Amino acid sequence: MKKAIVLLSGGLDSTVTLYYALSRRNKCYCLIFDYGQKHKKEINYAIKTTKLTNCEYKVLKFQLPWSNSSLTDKTVKIPVHNKIKTTNIPSTYVPARNTIFLSFALSWADVIKADNIFIGANAIDFSGYPDCRPEYFKHIQEIVHSGIKHGKLKIQVPLLKMSKKEIVRLGYRLEVPFENTWSCYVGGKHPCNKCDSCKLRQTGFEQAYE
Amino acid sequence: MKKAIVLLSGGLDSTVTLYYALSRRNKCYCLIFDYGQKHKKEINYAIKTTKLTNCEYKVLKFQLPWSNSSLTDKTVKIPVHNKIKTTNIPSTYVPARNTIFLSFALSWADVIKADNIFIGANAIDFSGYPDCRPEYFKHIQEIVHSGIKHGKLKIQVPLLKMSKKEIVRLGYRLEVPFENTWSCYVGGKHPCNKCDSCKLRQTGFEQAYE
Repeated sequence: MKKAIVLLSGGLDSTVTLYYALSRRNKCYCLIFDYGQKHKKEINYAIKTTKLTNCEYKVLKFQLPWSNSSLTDKTVKIPVHNKIKTTNIPSTYVPARNTIFLSFALSWADVIKADNIFIGANAIDFSGYPDCRPEYFKHIQEIVHSGIKHGKLKIQVPLLKMSKKEIVRLGYRLEVPFENTWSCYVGGKHPCNKCDSCKLRQTGFEQAYE
Repeated sequence: MKKAIVLLSGGLDSTVTLYYALSRRNKCYCLIFDYGQKHKKEINYAIKTTKLTNCEYKVLKFQLPWSNSSLTDKTVKIPVHNKIKTTNIPSTYVPARNTIFLSFALSWADVIKADNIFIGANAIDFSGYPDCRPEYFKHIQEIVHSGIKHGKLKIQVPLLKMSKKEIVRLGYRLEVPFENTWSCYVGGKHPCNKCDSCKLRQTGFEQAYE
């Protein structure tokens, strides 16, 4: 049995990633972030997932006082597009978010001497974020070897090159309870079905049945 | 005039680093961390320094729920040695601290489009910390180019290869008000003069006069 830190947001991708890590014989420690996201309710989904899977978890809280992201700033609206744009960086971009998340994961990994860190990042469907690109993760792996005490762990990004359709199909194979995941950026009572994250999720489920 | 994020703890090294960055024509934005350190009073020194130098600052707060560092854990004593050890990683090591600090700096830097991030890390006198080594900073520089939107900034580590004596001498040349810096890890009313950080500081000042 290996030990793994899994970054768990409560969304579709990170939940599938957790189930994947478990299927690969990892004892998983889930790291959940409360960083002022509008869709804070995703945290409850994440916590429920840790109970369902019997995993230990920690919630780490911080606020970025300089962030102008529409994901955290109440004065900036979550964008709605007719078609998902993947060429420009969208306003939902939170500067250096994956680097911040991974640095905390590294810290916990160093303490429990973890073998792996799993992150559900995906470069295909949403390449607008710079910290979702394959070359980024290559460099992060190098930090691991030089910047902590127990630097033998591996950064695992199993969904990196999958389409949303493939992620949904993988989720079905792993028996992920999709009803216990939350994707909508707006974070209202019901999914808005209009933000990029809702649209991507819908497209994934539609195409998975084709 | 360039823009720079400066990681400012309120200690000797980071304060000298700030004065150095200012002397190199940087408009400085100081990033201060409240991470449950026992010597939390260093934060007040840091804030006073930003006032003296007329720099903008932000205090970012977080807690590492897994950290067993003697710097943050009240149940673990700050170690006292007769001689400073530099071969083993001391118990004051906070796992991945510099990576966490730098990831937040990257985030702020991305928003203000900074040219530089200055960090007062030092590899000579205190090489016990893995995230103070030159190869570590080389990798961090690579993250910068791939992981954020405005990836042209440089990680500046001006004290990296200086001895404490040289840092103190540089501070004198830059007219750093040393009385407004705090180094002691214990964080009592007066410096303990026994912890590694106090000892290093004393040695630096003693040798600077030689």
